[in-house]
Amino acid sequence: MSYLYVTDGVLLNFASEAFLHEPGELHCQNGHIIYCGPKSGAPAPPPGARCLRAQGGLVLPSFVNSHGHAAMTLLRGVADDLDLHTWLNHHIFPLEGKLTPEAIYWGSLLACAEMIRSGITCFGDMYYYPHETVRAVRLAGLRAVLGETLLESLMTTQEQKKAGQARLKEFVAAYKGSADIKPILNLHAVYTCSPSLLQLGQELACDLDVGIHMHLCETKEEIEICQNTYGRPPVAHLQALGLLTPRLWVAHGVWLEPEEATLLARQGVGVAHCPSSNMKLASGLANVPGLLKAGVEVGLGTDGCASNNRLDMFSEMDMCAKVHKLSALDPTAMPAELALRMGTCMSAQVIGWPELGRLQVGHPADFIVIDSKRPHLSPMTSPISHLVYAARAADVRHTVCQGQVLMENGVISHLDEQQIMAKAGEHLARIMGS
Amino acid sequence: MSYLYVTDGVLLNFASEAFLHEPGELHCQNGHIIYCGPKSGAPAPPPGARCLRAQGGLVLPSFVNSHGHAAMTLLRGVADDLDLHTWLNHHIFPLEGKLTPEAIYWGSLLACAEMIRSGITCFGDMYYYPHETVRAVRLAGLRAVLGETLLESLMTTQEQKKAGQARLKEFVAAYKGSADIKPILNLHAVYTCSPSLLQLGQELACDLDVGIHMHLCETKEEIEICQNTYGRPPVAHLQALGLLTPRLWVAHGVWLEPEEATLLARQGVGVAHCPSSNMKLASGLANVPGLLKAGVEVGLGTDGCASNNRLDMFSEMDMCAKVHKLSALDPTAMPAELALRMGTCMSAQVIGWPELGRLQVGHPADFIVIDSKRPHLSPMTSPISHLVYAARAADVRHTVCQGQVLMENGVISHLDEQQIMAKAGEHLARIMGS
Repeated sequence: MSYLYVTDGVLLNFASEAFLHEPGELHCQNGHIIYCGPKSGAPAPPPGARCLRAQGGLVLPSFVNSHGHAAMTLLRGVADDLDLHTWLNHHIFPLEGKLTPEAIYWGSLLACAEMIRSGITCFGDMYYYPHETVRAVRLAGLRAVLGETLLESLMTTQEQKKAGQARLKEFVAAYKGSADIKPILNLHAVYTCSPSLLQLGQELACDLDVGIHMHLCETKEEIEICQNTYGRPPVAHLQALGLLTPRLWVAHGVWLEPEEATLLARQGVGVAHCPSSNMKLASGLANVPGLLKAGVEVGLGTDGCASNNRLDMFSEMDMCAKVHKLSALDPTAMPAELALRMGTCMSAQVIGWPELGRLQVGHPADFIVIDSKRPHLSPMTSPISHLVYAARAADVRHTVCQGQVLMENGVISHLDEQQIMAKAGEHLARIMGS
Repeated sequence: MSYLYVTDGVLLNFASEAFLHEPGELHCQNGHIIYCGPKSGAPAPPPGARCLRAQGGLVLPSFVNSHGHAAMTLLRGVADDLDLHTWLNHHIFPLEGKLTPEAIYWGSLLACAEMIRSGITCFGDMYYYPHETVRAVRLAGLRAVLGETLLESLMTTQEQKKAGQARLKEFVAAYKGSADIKPILNLHAVYTCSPSLLQLGQELACDLDVGIHMHLCETKEEIEICQNTYGRPPVAHLQALGLLTPRLWVAHGVWLEPEEATLLARQGVGVAHCPSSNMKLASGLANVPGLLKAGVEVGLGTDGCASNNRLDMFSEMDMCAKVHKLSALDPTAMPAELALRMGTCMSAQVIGWPELGRLQVGHPADFIVIDSKRPHLSPMTSPISHLVYAARAADVRHTVCQGQVLMENGVISHLDEQQIMAKAGEHLARIMGS
């Protein structure tokens, strides 16, 4: 039996059960929260329980990153400020073609170290060799929602198709029901998967009872390609193919029309909003206030490091809160508390793991402690405002996932970060040089 | 004679003389750079010289913050996500009315601590009781461009006008010619200063030979008010009153028309672009690529903490690079290197201190060292891209201004940050409670 409790903290929750307890205590047993409330009502911890001191800091749910490509941390900064075509075809795709399973393992591990440091404990991922990413996630002690990625170009022959399906089934069988990994099926996009591949994916996801993760309406070009190829825009295309079900969550949704938002809401399809990536690639801006108004569940995602270039939900929340105010020319369009909910409980909902992202008795013990005694967080007038508009990833003092302390006082003792950074550098040098 | 040198660094410069030296050395004597280049050509330091180890980190010019209100760190987070009218009239103005000189001193000192930590060593400031801010700047060891602020409401009687002018002259006389303080005259805005006050300010600035700092074209309402009151928009208004000279630099410039940009360029008026503040208050977005194309000098500013809510040029550079890509739907619209130049040498030019913001022999020894061995900066492929898209204020390891080490390995030993935070909290509590 493992018992962990946090003392001297300011407890914050912004999910349906919103609260602030100061001073508050959080007690966890076997990876779940068993008490979360004022210090005065806290139970006595059993002998041998582990104590984590918040030292007056903020205790809040850890972040859930609803869309990314962890292994792409390897490609951070290799190509920037280029048009999408040059970026993808002349830089990213050629380099990705050289990535080995081992490179993907080290890239994923580098991503995990960065996410522990920025307070993310669960992420939705789309990439190749997902077993390698699982290895990294398990060594790091995080959670992830991931799986094989189906792409037309990887399944041109019947043999490849068969092998792909087999890998997919094997991956789902290996991890389904585990506490840290939720297997899913990744379908890259409507412009990289044929209608028959999309339908095959939908059938497999139903048979295996897993979710589907997909890029959707990221760029104007995607809409045009789909319209020109299939005579309908991406959302109508997916609807016709039977993919619009609560099983599906999509990344980006930049170019969704109002009636498409209504349809996604009705069909229970969530959206991972990736403001930094969409801005950096100049793809456009998703109408998040409009999506929320239509009833769509919207989370926040970092996307991969080739297009962001960091895995930091503080940046995404800040960007989200500010860019939608600008877009609407209305300072009330995206309040700080909504951005915080998008980065935690709403992201958790989107990726199909609704137990996460909230401090609540019975829920998983996934949380962070922020050091609030820093000049840029002083005076500590409004914790919620400070978390979105002033705090930074480096303010995360402790990170806890599944009741396990992954970082304490800024130290990640179970990972060799120097080795991880060196290995990532070596793998990048190899693929850049070859 | 003080001698300081930096070893084991990657030297970066992005001003007119752009370079990267790895490994490089930087040597400073009596507050100025005397060597900046490859390690192989570096001079031998004299006995007793102070050595700062970069440990493989990036050495670059420190940031210049071209617009802010340092003392407003006291009001960080007191009111957010409100429309501008409610925010200003129901929250900010009433609280500002209660600020004492002592509160302004502690607020300014809190700002200085935050800026040393985020790598800013010079800032342009507009506020009240500037002697108090100077006290803080000098204790902190920074540089600032600041002065008395003229506002119609503070100068309604002849006595107030006389006293205001006397204070202004006395302030300029006290600091003109000093190495750390450039006295200027702050004219708040066209909607808070009458034409006669603006003209008086211009005359005084000419007589005293100092710069003028002003808010301009921040909101649509400002344009409308000016048009309705004086029958012309703000830029034409200032032109008619004779204020458009190289003496003037303006903050915001959100609603500048193309022909106004051309006029500002011709008249040598620089613009402090404040993306975070303009986005958070939903004021709009300055057309920075357009201003630059017209030949206007543009720097970056944080604005005050009531509207940002932090003093962090990493955030501003990142926001600037991304929001202009989004606005233009063009990923080449604002490259990382341009954002870095805006945050350093271009800001220095805008506030009238062109010697700052560049690593160059003969120039002031104002620089920072970034710790680059961190997961979110790995692999270290492209230093310039990483500085804008991945680095954060907490990555600043050493901060140096005037050849003096203000922060070494994250420690600011000459300031009592605990006391500063406590005092700031007390002053805020007093004005919130009274």
